[in-house]
Amino acid sequence: MSNRTALVVSAHSADFVWRCGGAIALHAARGYEVTIVCLSYGERGESAKLWKQEGMTLEKVKAGRRKEAENAAEALAAHDIQFFDLGDYPLEMDREAKYRLVDVIRKVQPSFMLSHSLDDPYNTDHPYATRATLECRMVAQAWGHNPGEAVLGAPQLYLFEPHQTERCGWKPDTLLDITPVWERKKAAIECMEGQQHLWTYYTNVAENRANQFRRNSGGQSGGREAKYAEGFQSIFPRTVDEL
Amino acid sequence: MSNRTALVVSAHSADFVWRCGGAIALHAARGYEVTIVCLSYGERGESAKLWKQEGMTLEKVKAGRRKEAENAAEALAAHDIQFFDLGDYPLEMDREAKYRLVDVIRKVQPSFMLSHSLDDPYNTDHPYATRATLECRMVAQAWGHNPGEAVLGAPQLYLFEPHQTERCGWKPDTLLDITPVWERKKAAIECMEGQQHLWTYYTNVAENRANQFRRNSGGQSGGREAKYAEGFQSIFPRTVDEL
Amino acid sequence: MSNRTALVVSAHSADFVWRCGGAIALHAARGYEVTIVCLSYGERGESAKLWKQEGMTLEKVKAGRRKEAENAAEALAAHDIQFFDLGDYPLEMDREAKYRLVDVIRKVQPSFMLSHSLDDPYNTDHPYATRATLECRMVAQAWGHNPGEAVLGAPQLYLFEPHQTERCGWKPDTLLDITPVWERKKAAIECMEGQQHLWTYYTNVAENRANQFRRNSGGQSGGREAKYAEGFQSIFPRTVDEL
Amino acid sequence: MSNRTALVVSAHSADFVWRCGGAIALHAARGYEVTIVCLSYGERGESAKLWKQEGMTLEKVKAGRRKEAENAAEALAAHDIQFFDLGDYPLEMDREAKYRLVDVIRKVQPSFMLSHSLDDPYNTDHPYATRATLECRMVAQAWGHNPGEAVLGAPQLYLFEPHQTERCGWKPDTLLDITPVWERKKAAIECMEGQQHLWTYYTNVAENRANQFRRNSGGQSGGREAKYAEGFQSIFPRTVDEL
Amino acid sequence: MSNRTALVVSAHSADFVWRCGGAIALHAARGYEVTIVCLSYGERGESAKLWKQEGMTLEKVKAGRRKEAENAAEALAAHDIQFFDLGDYPLEMDREAKYRLVDVIRKVQPSFMLSHSLDDPYNTDHPYATRATLECRMVAQAWGHNPGEAVLGAPQLYLFEPHQTERCGWKPDTLLDITPVWERKKAAIECMEGQQHLWTYYTNVAENRANQFRRNSGGQSGGREAKYAEGFQSIFPRTVDEL
Amino acid sequence: MSNRTALVVSAHSADFVWRCGGAIALHAARGYEVTIVCLSYGERGESAKLWKQEGMTLEKVKAGRRKEAENAAEALAAHDIQFFDLGDYPLEMDREAKYRLVDVIRKVQPSFMLSHSLDDPYNTDHPYATRATLECRMVAQAWGHNPGEAVLGAPQLYLFEPHQTERCGWKPDTLLDITPVWERKKAAIECMEGQQHLWTYYTNVAENRANQFRRNSGGQSGGREAKYAEGFQSIFPRTVDEL
Repeated sequence: MSNRTALVVSAHSADFVWRCGGAIALHAARGYEVTIVCLSYGERGESAKLWKQEGMTLEKVKAGRRKEAENAAEALAAHDIQFFDLGDYPLEMDREAKYRLVDVIRKVQPSFMLSHSLDDPYNTDHPYATRATLECRMVAQAWGHNPGEAVLGAPQLYLFEPHQTERCGWKPDTLLDITPVWERKKAAIECMEGQQHLWTYYTNVAENRANQFRRNSGGQSGGREAKYAEGFQSIFPRTVDEL
Repeated sequence: MSNRTALVVSAHSADFVWRCGGAIALHAARGYEVTIVCLSYGERGESAKLWKQEGMTLEKVKAGRRKEAENAAEALAAHDIQFFDLGDYPLEMDREAKYRLVDVIRKVQPSFMLSHSLDDPYNTDHPYATRATLECRMVAQAWGHNPGEAVLGAPQLYLFEPHQTERCGWKPDTLLDITPVWERKKAAIECMEGQQHLWTYYTNVAENRANQFRRNSGGQSGGREAKYAEGFQSIFPRTVDEL
Repeated sequence: MSNRTALVVSAHSADFVWRCGGAIALHAARGYEVTIVCLSYGERGESAKLWKQEGMTLEKVKAGRRKEAENAAEALAAHDIQFFDLGDYPLEMDREAKYRLVDVIRKVQPSFMLSHSLDDPYNTDHPYATRATLECRMVAQAWGHNPGEAVLGAPQLYLFEPHQTERCGWKPDTLLDITPVWERKKAAIECMEGQQHLWTYYTNVAENRANQFRRNSGGQSGGREAKYAEGFQSIFPRTVDEL
Repeated sequence: MSNRTALVVSAHSADFVWRCGGAIALHAARGYEVTIVCLSYGERGESAKLWKQEGMTLEKVKAGRRKEAENAAEALAAHDIQFFDLGDYPLEMDREAKYRLVDVIRKVQPSFMLSHSLDDPYNTDHPYATRATLECRMVAQAWGHNPGEAVLGAPQLYLFEPHQTERCGWKPDTLLDITPVWERKKAAIECMEGQQHLWTYYTNVAENRANQFRRNSGGQSGGREAKYAEGFQSIFPRTVDEL
Repeated sequence: MSNRTALVVSAHSADFVWRCGGAIALHAARGYEVTIVCLSYGERGESAKLWKQEGMTLEKVKAGRRKEAENAAEALAAHDIQFFDLGDYPLEMDREAKYRLVDVIRKVQPSFMLSHSLDDPYNTDHPYATRATLECRMVAQAWGHNPGEAVLGAPQLYLFEPHQTERCGWKPDTLLDITPVWERKKAAIECMEGQQHLWTYYTNVAENRANQFRRNSGGQSGGREAKYAEGFQSIFPRTVDEL
Repeated sequence: MSNRTALVVSAHSADFVWRCGGAIALHAARGYEVTIVCLSYGERGESAKLWKQEGMTLEKVKAGRRKEAENAAEALAAHDIQFFDLGDYPLEMDREAKYRLVDVIRKVQPSFMLSHSLDDPYNTDHPYATRATLECRMVAQAWGHNPGEAVLGAPQLYLFEPHQTERCGWKPDTLLDITPVWERKKAAIECMEGQQHLWTYYTNVAENRANQFRRNSGGQSGGREAKYAEGFQSIFPRTVDEL
């Protein structure tokens, strides 16, 4: 019934890898066309390792970050990755940038969307991106915005996992088994050469979410043998025909 | 993979009708065996109309309430309805009563369970029933409880809709289209002759949840044409292979 | 002691009808002068039916929406309705627009104000309007803003009912019996020809809030026989001489 | 319309003084018959000063605490004070104790009730008393409990101020001006000879709540000149004819 | 100033290992005498592996669990471990059991206490233990409980990490570097032969909390090089002389 | 290890006095260099007394407020006070203003920071300042912002006490004994001649927070004899070597 498309809105160009790389690869493998929008490169705030190199410039950082993200998107078999290059720390979107995101949303017509948690005291760019995504989702639904274009339906917005979940008020209600595509996610993670300090962290996260997957799918009575999983929080209720 | 069985734990003998009668009928129609446990008859607190009659006694109230509930269960095509007769206002469960519920849970091996909201300042029996259900679910999972019996897996616990949702801290994350079985739910509602003041209320609820179903399944871009729906809140995360 | 005036701040030109039309009519009938400010016409996002017509333009939509709102305000016997025409989806207020709202607040000197819920993931214009209202209320209290003008006291801000209450974190603490003016609210609702899909929804809401009014005013021991009611959430504590 | 009666449920025999002595005196002065139920004397946990005296016994502590509470109730012009003597630290109520409270509730038929906050990590007796009060309020509403007796309507339950408000999740929505009866509350406070360390504390609280009363009744534009106030949190929505 | 003693209240006999084994070992190494109370052996609900063995009995399970816990306590250099043997799934404490815990608290006079999260829908024994601990802490502070004994001061209660943090509403505010004692915690974990499925899980948790330790102690500007950490949530405010 | 410096971000020029004057004076006395940034003078919204004088102008109000704040800072022995003069009611910060704050943060390299609560329906400038502070803290940590400058570590952000704590969702987790410097805070308070209505209020607050300090540091078993205290809420977890 719904389109087999999905849209990821990533504040910085590496976020999509750690937080929903498995979801991207898994849905790609299932035939979804997954589009990734990187609102910024994370060039100022998430590229410390590059900035510590001699003679580094903003353009070089952006180019390096872009290359890494493109490689990761390819490793995940994403359909498309777009870079809005809006700047980071802080990220800001004017009306033009928002309408650009609306255009992408309408073009993709995603059956679901992915973005950051609603709060994050460590990183204000993250909730900023999510709130802008909710706003753009609303505009994309408006019949009076670019009349004649196909308006957006009501795709779920899943919030992917922030770095320090409890401090961000993020509470997963959906655990996704990404075992079949773990090698792809691992490959994408390893594209992020500038942030090796996070490789182990997100491998641990994936293993532990899989433990929770096993518990919630049956526990000691025989849960599913997931080895790697990702967690997501839904913003909207599901509409179903069976519980 | 999972059993096609479900279990409803209802504090009083009419709660299951208003709050999840549609879910019962729908799953019955889909081939589920749905078992209903009524912890009490609601004989003291939810039978005002009967008590206003001349010469009424506790036993007569209980008999009347039981009959109504049995009729409703039949209208919904429930597989089984059991009456624990534990008393109401207040409802209290000792260890024996809890183990009785554990026995039912293990016997039914439900793929999902339904009970009340976690809070309700108007009706303390309701959250009491839910907390007991969570406790009994845990006991049913214990390998050391009646060793040798088949232990319980990890069924979802859905919280059905309380009377004044916002005051009970209840937040639906799942909307179920019950249009195909509305006539059954209506028939079950009309078995509850002692509580006619609630008939319109829960018809309105079903219509309005259907409006929300339409919005969340597509909105102005073409949501599903549900006419009646029920809302539920999940306690545990879902474990899925696709978002 | 306080002025018999009230002020409604409505993000789009129809919101005031569904959400507080009864409160407007009731207070008008009690001698209050109620002023309504529509920050936008909802011309882009809440006029799907109009946009589906051949040859529709933004100006025609706005004119149509304005007419409907004026008719509704008249049906409710509102004192005044003002259109700020700030655009919708998204609604944005610059400093000039905010000061315009401050001017209205100071001129009206409302004994209470009404606006939207503090959150709404479906419609970011709604909480935007409320937060702007809180900000403008604060500016209107400042002795240094247009010195010499009468500053604002401390009117209550009531949040009226959003479409999907639980998802918006809205929790009513005040139920208002609007039975005496229901015919007026119904007439206002029927002015909204473009949104007939909402007529039944908000009639159901009014009936069910009345059920809650009866329960909270006495329940089975004899509550007040309200037939239609509206719910509101207060932002500030009440200051009273009797509980 | 409603009875001019009120009921206070106090976990320990001094709680009613600090937390709602002003409300008692004010309503007494307005013609309300206010009944106070002290579930325990606070003899074990809130009588440190007495226990430090040579040769003290449980009975002596209880007698002393009772005398203090009676004096305070008289100073406040309460209609009646009853001592359930259920023990404290921890307070526990069996079914008999609860039904005794139900009897009082039905006899008093209060137009409003007062008890503790819903949480208090410092003092688990306090929320225990409140939860029992909610349960007994529900039983008092049941037509099947002692059929023939007048059932209870739907009185508001106000939660009075705990010692460390923020840690107890208590949020006042109602500020009561107790200036006219402050001397009475002061006299009642001074009956509590064993807890002089609290006298200044609750005088400060009353002054600061009055500051908030002034702000919320008009602020710098001319709020009411309250000098002493008490704060309360409501459990149920108000049912009104005017906002 | 304060005693160099600490008290852990563990619902089941293995909880203290996974959740605060590092804190125990670290404080032991710093000269604290740490006492552990195991309210039950987890014999019914957390010993699935044992129950799957031929000819297993409750007594054998309890003996095996006790041995494991004693070994773990020794590996952590705990001062004392006590087994209350109250039964599990469900855990229940009558007044006698609570007073027994009060006795331990008073004897230990801990400068801080450790127990479970306040909520846990998966395991109702956990919050039950914490609430009982809060109640017993209160009783231990009462001058009228066993007059003449030294009463308790006001030790902090830290909540240690539950299995699925976000679902339990647990939010860490304190990160403890346990790197110096990791080998001891690892040894204690490996005493838990019946629950090998948790070894990796809690090693991952320790590594990831250490990542958070590094971030919160300095981040990319040079945080402390912790390799293993544990997180805790405080119930009471800290009282300090310096921020 | 950490710098003995601290930074206060105050929305209006008097906020720092009421809310953290004790913390400033105490840390100054301990050798900390405390820098205060006043984003505005509070010239429009918090200077009612001045505006009631004949012939008052904005410049005169600002000059008067500045003088008061400088005197208060001196009374507290603050190291530096800076006035950004950004305007108030509403306070707004453009990118230039934010970068100016980033510059101060980097120059001061505070070991901890202080600002307002995250919510305040009475005063939207307050949470605005806090959110900007969190954003600027993040920018100050970015290696790509003014590359070559020393980046910021991870200082705690403490939220100081708002006027109506419970309505602002503020919950103190840290109580600071300011008894040794109370005379300094009192002197600073008395510099605020335009707001005498607040002197008693914040003296009461300090006395009552001290009562809570005594309770939480030992209670009836012998807490610390603090006479004046301030409360703070932490945003980030503490990283410690001992609980």
